[in-house]
Amino acid sequence: MIMAPAGAKRNILERLDAGEIVIGDGGFVFALEKRGYVKAGPWTPEAAAEHPEAVRQLHREFLRAGSNVMQTFTFYASDDKLENRGNAQRFTGTQINEAACDLAREVANEGDAMVAGGVSQTPSYLSCKCEDEVKGIFKRQLDVFVKKNVDFMIAEYFEHVEEAEWAVQVLKTSGKPVCASLCIGPDGDLNGVSPGDCAVRLVKAGANIVGINCHFDPMTCVKTVKMMKEGVERAGLKAHYMVQPLAFHTPDCNCQGFIDLPEFPFGLEPRILTRWDMHKYAREAFNVGIRFIGGCCGFEPYHIRAVAEELATERGCLPAASEKHGNWGAGLEMHTKPWVRARARRDYWEKLMPASGRPKCPSMSTPDSWGVTKGHADLMQHKEATSQEELKPLFEKAKASH
Amino acid sequence: MIMAPAGAKRNILERLDAGEIVIGDGGFVFALEKRGYVKAGPWTPEAAAEHPEAVRQLHREFLRAGSNVMQTFTFYASDDKLENRGNAQRFTGTQINEAACDLAREVANEGDAMVAGGVSQTPSYLSCKCEDEVKGIFKRQLDVFVKKNVDFMIAEYFEHVEEAEWAVQVLKTSGKPVCASLCIGPDGDLNGVSPGDCAVRLVKAGANIVGINCHFDPMTCVKTVKMMKEGVERAGLKAHYMVQPLAFHTPDCNCQGFIDLPEFPFGLEPRILTRWDMHKYAREAFNVGIRFIGGCCGFEPYHIRAVAEELATERGCLPAASEKHGNWGAGLEMHTKPWVRARARRDYWEKLMPASGRPKCPSMSTPDSWGVTKGHADLMQHKEATSQEELKPLFEKAKASH
Amino acid sequence: MIMAPAGAKRNILERLDAGEIVIGDGGFVFALEKRGYVKAGPWTPEAAAEHPEAVRQLHREFLRAGSNVMQTFTFYASDDKLENRGNAQRFTGTQINEAACDLAREVANEGDAMVAGGVSQTPSYLSCKCEDEVKGIFKRQLDVFVKKNVDFMIAEYFEHVEEAEWAVQVLKTSGKPVCASLCIGPDGDLNGVSPGDCAVRLVKAGANIVGINCHFDPMTCVKTVKMMKEGVERAGLKAHYMVQPLAFHTPDCNCQGFIDLPEFPFGLEPRILTRWDMHKYAREAFNVGIRFIGGCCGFEPYHIRAVAEELATERGCLPAASEKHGNWGAGLEMHTKPWVRARARRDYWEKLMPASGRPKCPSMSTPDSWGVTKGHADLMQHKEATSQEELKPLFEKAKASH
Amino acid sequence: MIMAPAGAKRNILERLDAGEIVIGDGGFVFALEKRGYVKAGPWTPEAAAEHPEAVRQLHREFLRAGSNVMQTFTFYASDDKLENRGNAQRFTGTQINEAACDLAREVANEGDAMVAGGVSQTPSYLSCKCEDEVKGIFKRQLDVFVKKNVDFMIAEYFEHVEEAEWAVQVLKTSGKPVCASLCIGPDGDLNGVSPGDCAVRLVKAGANIVGINCHFDPMTCVKTVKMMKEGVERAGLKAHYMVQPLAFHTPDCNCQGFIDLPEFPFGLEPRILTRWDMHKYAREAFNVGIRFIGGCCGFEPYHIRAVAEELATERGCLPAASEKHGNWGAGLEMHTKPWVRARARRDYWEKLMPASGRPKCPSMSTPDSWGVTKGHADLMQHKEATSQEELKPLFEKAKASH
Repeated sequence: MIMAPAGAKRNILERLDAGEIVIGDGGFVFALEKRGYVKAGPWTPEAAAEHPEAVRQLHREFLRAGSNVMQTFTFYASDDKLENRGNAQRFTGTQINEAACDLAREVANEGDAMVAGGVSQTPSYLSCKCEDEVKGIFKRQLDVFVKKNVDFMIAEYFEHVEEAEWAVQVLKTSGKPVCASLCIGPDGDLNGVSPGDCAVRLVKAGANIVGINCHFDPMTCVKTVKMMKEGVERAGLKAHYMVQPLAFHTPDCNCQGFIDLPEFPFGLEPRILTRWDMHKYAREAFNVGIRFIGGCCGFEPYHIRAVAEELATERGCLPAASEKHGNWGAGLEMHTKPWVRARARRDYWEKLMPASGRPKCPSMSTPDSWGVTKGHADLMQHKEATSQEELKPLFEKAKASH
Repeated sequence: MIMAPAGAKRNILERLDAGEIVIGDGGFVFALEKRGYVKAGPWTPEAAAEHPEAVRQLHREFLRAGSNVMQTFTFYASDDKLENRGNAQRFTGTQINEAACDLAREVANEGDAMVAGGVSQTPSYLSCKCEDEVKGIFKRQLDVFVKKNVDFMIAEYFEHVEEAEWAVQVLKTSGKPVCASLCIGPDGDLNGVSPGDCAVRLVKAGANIVGINCHFDPMTCVKTVKMMKEGVERAGLKAHYMVQPLAFHTPDCNCQGFIDLPEFPFGLEPRILTRWDMHKYAREAFNVGIRFIGGCCGFEPYHIRAVAEELATERGCLPAASEKHGNWGAGLEMHTKPWVRARARRDYWEKLMPASGRPKCPSMSTPDSWGVTKGHADLMQHKEATSQEELKPLFEKAKASH
Repeated sequence: MIMAPAGAKRNILERLDAGEIVIGDGGFVFALEKRGYVKAGPWTPEAAAEHPEAVRQLHREFLRAGSNVMQTFTFYASDDKLENRGNAQRFTGTQINEAACDLAREVANEGDAMVAGGVSQTPSYLSCKCEDEVKGIFKRQLDVFVKKNVDFMIAEYFEHVEEAEWAVQVLKTSGKPVCASLCIGPDGDLNGVSPGDCAVRLVKAGANIVGINCHFDPMTCVKTVKMMKEGVERAGLKAHYMVQPLAFHTPDCNCQGFIDLPEFPFGLEPRILTRWDMHKYAREAFNVGIRFIGGCCGFEPYHIRAVAEELATERGCLPAASEKHGNWGAGLEMHTKPWVRARARRDYWEKLMPASGRPKCPSMSTPDSWGVTKGHADLMQHKEATSQEELKPLFEKAKASH
Repeated sequence: MIMAPAGAKRNILERLDAGEIVIGDGGFVFALEKRGYVKAGPWTPEAAAEHPEAVRQLHREFLRAGSNVMQTFTFYASDDKLENRGNAQRFTGTQINEAACDLAREVANEGDAMVAGGVSQTPSYLSCKCEDEVKGIFKRQLDVFVKKNVDFMIAEYFEHVEEAEWAVQVLKTSGKPVCASLCIGPDGDLNGVSPGDCAVRLVKAGANIVGINCHFDPMTCVKTVKMMKEGVERAGLKAHYMVQPLAFHTPDCNCQGFIDLPEFPFGLEPRILTRWDMHKYAREAFNVGIRFIGGCCGFEPYHIRAVAEELATERGCLPAASEKHGNWGAGLEMHTKPWVRARARRDYWEKLMPASGRPKCPSMSTPDSWGVTKGHADLMQHKEATSQEELKPLFEKAKASH
């Protein structure tokens, strides 16, 4: 059953129009942070130029796991972000964006994958909200993507639908298919625009595929895309849908997602989804009518493989990496201990409620946050261990920013 | 402070005798399973020959994270294991062992690292316990290591001290330094030999460095090595000490370690240690007098980097990968949200009790197991969801094997 | 500060109109079940006649804890319920209701408390929905309450606002103040009538005091009463408000409350609120504008005392039982161990996150349920350990009842 | 099956010699604290004189639940303790002890129960360790017990075997059967004397029945009694055995038991055992050979009833309170909801892992403690929220007391 799916060479819209499932890749910044090539905090992708072998290898692992899309590793690679973060700059933004395109193309050509050029939200939008300036920033990245001839475009990780609309409008000028993916939950964007309304606005701006990425766990993201779909259908419009969630369980997060959880970003381990959680996610996304199904922060290659395995019948193929993975734990059949062999069964893994091994830790946290939505009390409370002196400057800056 | 430590070129015993800290690498089979190159169940390392780029990249990541030791990816690469597991064999055992040596050497030469050739417990010991046959198996692997001129030898992952003694005796014939590492806990080996007695026997067999790897969480392994050290000192002997534990919290496991936890091997995610847990581990191992400090299953490059960062002052250097890691979360200082910036502090991460995000899961499990130690009742109980019919053959085989 | 509040002798409406706080009592059926006098399942109150000393003692403990209301122990004491439950009937319904009135009056007269006669939902409503018949049942209980001259009436524990309206209409004929208390959550009654609409209907039916009791934890009940209050105020009506919640944490329950939790009724222990949780509840209820504040299932005398202690300043008195309770743990000041003495502080107990001591148990459950709202799948899934044969008759009956 | 067991009128040794099971009562100080009659901190039993109706009622509930022993409510009723605690003293120690004897006798005579007079550890032992003085204190209590003609004596809640020996020696002078019960765990008494050695010393001092009460959860206490039994048998001596544990789960406590848990005494609710936990405890205690089986702090009447129900076949009777309790949840058979009816089964309750409803709380705590056993670091660490200034006097006193 391991073979290339029938869709090779056609573009993403042709594939989706034909009813195919397109599998996305996983989260590069988180995966490469753990491998030592991305710095948490800035989260910028200069590794595409600095350590191309590491980025290439990760692309390959996702390809092998079943991804049909190689996203260029250009997250936060807008000029303003790269400058803004005080990052040591051995490479220009253009060099980083070009290197990322070359790596994605190189690996895409090794299999049945398309290259997607990606842009994401900008510091400029947050600081000036000036449409021309922000569009100029997207345009500079787009120039690279056009020059490198990527297959389609993704505007992703936007918290404000307005900025996403601007991005879509810029990306549409390329003539390539455009995806628009927000990092919001069921409560809508940070201005309170509902998922349904966001989706309608993005489709009207020209997006062919709309959906959600990052910030929330898989089931929450699927639920939010469902709300987007309902909005689009209510408006009598048409679109395809995508979802690329976290690989972390986040039942306790507020409207700003996992950023506000106290564990972000260095204590999220106990929340990592198992491969079996991914089976449930893939099935649910499929049932809701989403056909571009991938991952974001926390997704490792084996998570994408699990998505591909769950949908193997529908897609008509297993991914290459399944040569190293028995179906539902079947690889354990030859284990020396009978009670481990007894785990080589689907119902065993489906029903397992995995223990944390951390009896002194809770199972849910209280999100940090601040300001309009939840009030200053939250900050004060969470900062028990911090002196008020230390917090004063934070307050000053925060007030200034509202 | 990023620079090569002074110890390059000298062998491991010279380094340890000089009081240096030697940092090991992490767990290849688990890391490569998640990347799609190793099959859980057999756990064999044919990827060294099949997908050398993936193995090379993982070596590089550990080197970059601070490892001074590149262990050849030859776990379970004895001929009997490779045959026994029914693994599709495109490569002979010798080819796999040789490829693994070449990859380790290639990357070791890119930095300040030594190559360690590794052997581990064999199916032959379990089935026949015939000394000559088992030693012959070790000898065939050793021939490769000698031919490829590795720097030193590690006999690791032994549950019976007797088999480890045999391995040490074989490896000693190479004239290279020999490490012996058992996968046991404070209760001793599977025949009930105490850690202290095990250590004495291994030192007497010729091991220069003794310790523990795999099967238990870091603090349990450190505690067990401490017992080994006390045994050696009580016996008036001398040795160096090593520890390469799991990166999983396992407070609930029995004498056979994480294998018997119901989450093994596909539901261990909630148990993964954070980088801050690794700081505590590294400090505790150092305090106990252990100087060869590394990792086993579950250790990713960032875990090893955390060990290297904790011991940076003692070692006089930070690893290369620390260029992408702020000290104790310092990279968050430039985050846009003040309450995330407030996490850029050592005491924040030291005190964090990370939530699992899984309120319907417990924090501890009941280990599966069987037979002499815990009785048949355990199997029966754990198998609630399994029909007794299904279990019958397991019983038959199990009885036969006792 | 221990003294009788000024409100003695006046009726409940005079007290509430004067801005006083009225403290209710706790849950008799649960407390007496643990003491051996009520049978879980039927939950009927024949102990009022069978074991008056046990009921009297519990009344006294609540009085001593600060209760201003002695509710007659007549829960489920309607004739149809008493017959229906197959309960061995040494006493008639009238005898039970009369005995309960006498006990409540006897203890109320020992302090500053009013006697409230109570009626609750009937099997008749569920089986026939015939207004006359149901009202007749309430009337028979009311006759006893009028004869025994209770101070006011409570219609409580109704899941359907319609039945509660009928009860209010009957109770109003007595000329006494009438409370109406539903056992619903924020989602409304079992027909989906919102809390705000329920409250408006109850006030229009003649209720002077409206609110919530049982089925949900304190914070959920307070939130629901808040919705009722908003509904009443939006409708331009006037009322007083009451709340008598569970003493169990139920973050995981669905619209039917704790009945559907798998732990109901014999495994709820880990959910029991501490006295410090009660302080938070009392403060929140007060802040929302509720002035009749009591408890239901799970409330023991010390829970009511904690409510009274939290509101001691507002009420101008401490309860008698506070002679045996140091403020915020002050009684520990004389403990022999300094680290226990160090717990004699408000902030210690306010911040404590108490451990369950049950590392193999989860922190949340999945509610059982069935039918319209959640589908048959739930029953099937929860019944893993039950044969389908065994469940068949349940299915038959359930279908018949819809 | 509800009837009096055959053993009435015979004394406790005759009953035990005949192989009967004797069921103890539960924890008066904790139960009465929740009812409002005992002050946590001093924990003294003046309620016997102040509020006899409350104490009488609790005795009755335990009798009804199956207790064969009414312990006089004289815990901490030695003169030195009563004075020492600064307790408002409306009654002399003699009055309290006498009142307690009268209440126990009154209720014992209502059924098949014996009266046991109890003494417990004294402040005098801790401060002077003078044998004569301490024995004098026990003697003054004994005089009351002899005058009131209790049926047998219990010396309980001793942390030092030496003081327990002194108590036994005094109590033996009465000619009545003597029980000696320590509040220690498997690690032995606070001087490190093992449970086995403690038991031997107590038997040699004259105790007829030895065992454990308080401080640890049921399974830990049973395990410790087992060690005592093994010690006694190894020494060639003979004794009967008793156990009266906590009704709290305490897997995380250190050698000093639940006192050192951060939840002691006002946050223990999530740890309370269910009735089903009590079935397991009763069975395990019986299997180990213990025949005097009761409870201590946290035991409510329904917990004792569960012990009696588990051992109903062996005892040949059910307790009176079982008229209000269906076997293994059978009372739910008539519930209106089929999925609640489906809980009327033994295997349902046996397998239930009850959730805490507290997802932000851990499942285990770190015990507080201090000094010899664990060092000052513990105090410092646990006191995060406390200023060092505040702790200074505690340190001074603590040092002075060692």
